[in-house]
Amino acid sequence: MSLPGAGAPARIRVPPRKPHAMHDARFARLPKPPYYAVIFSSRRLAGEGDGYAEAAARMEELVRAQPGFLGAESTRDGEGFGITVAYFEDESSIRGWREHIEHAQTRQRGRDEWYRHFEVRVAKVERAYGWDRGDA
Amino acid sequence: MSLPGAGAPARIRVPPRKPHAMHDARFARLPKPPYYAVIFSSRRLAGEGDGYAEAAARMEELVRAQPGFLGAESTRDGEGFGITVAYFEDESSIRGWREHIEHAQTRQRGRDEWYRHFEVRVAKVERAYGWDRGDA
Repeated sequence: MSLPGAGAPARIRVPPRKPHAMHDARFARLPKPPYYAVIFSSRRLAGEGDGYAEAAARMEELVRAQPGFLGAESTRDGEGFGITVAYFEDESSIRGWREHIEHAQTRQRGRDEWYRHFEVRVAKVERAYGWDRGDA
Repeated sequence: MSLPGAGAPARIRVPPRKPHAMHDARFARLPKPPYYAVIFSSRRLAGEGDGYAEAAARMEELVRAQPGFLGAESTRDGEGFGITVAYFEDESSIRGWREHIEHAQTRQRGRDEWYRHFEVRVAKVERAYGWDRGDA
């Protein structure tokens, strides 16, 4: 038995290395589809110091511990219009998160205190692709 | 034969009117699921006066004329992280938009000039619901 490098030099082809694209933490790193997306778009009431930022940070901490949670992306503009997309393995992990008691309480606070309007769409991701300047 | 109102006064119940919720134009008005969502998340390069806003306005004009286009929601924060979700009737209308020549040219400009990174997820919306403060 011989190990590579013990006899004739092994001809290992090292593929040309792409410039390493630093991962941008705002993007979710997701497995290959299929998986589920919960698309939450919302208009905030004007509000500073209304506990929203703290609650959002707490929800992020909780959802990361939710079985089946895959990742999320979120943004909001200066007019208070935001979109958050949270990704889950399957419908049952979405249900688990929906039934989380602290999350349910925080959704109620959202209706009472923070939002003017929101829409939720639950969708099954069938295909996905990405592009990075470092790949180009 | 008698018509309502011709004889005894018809007892028509008018449901209590909800306060009329003004439609917020940032939200898409969509039919009942199923339909498709194209979720586009992106990080812009820093740029003003790079033609992006004009191109985005032109793409919005074009996509509204695309058969099967249902609506879109879009937002971007001060760090240049944005999410746009465009909704279509079916996969074939997504393909039609993808193959639109001016859209394809603009996607190429996006890679050349405007984006550092983007992700696209194509998903079938299975259920949806919304909430408005005026309903509460």
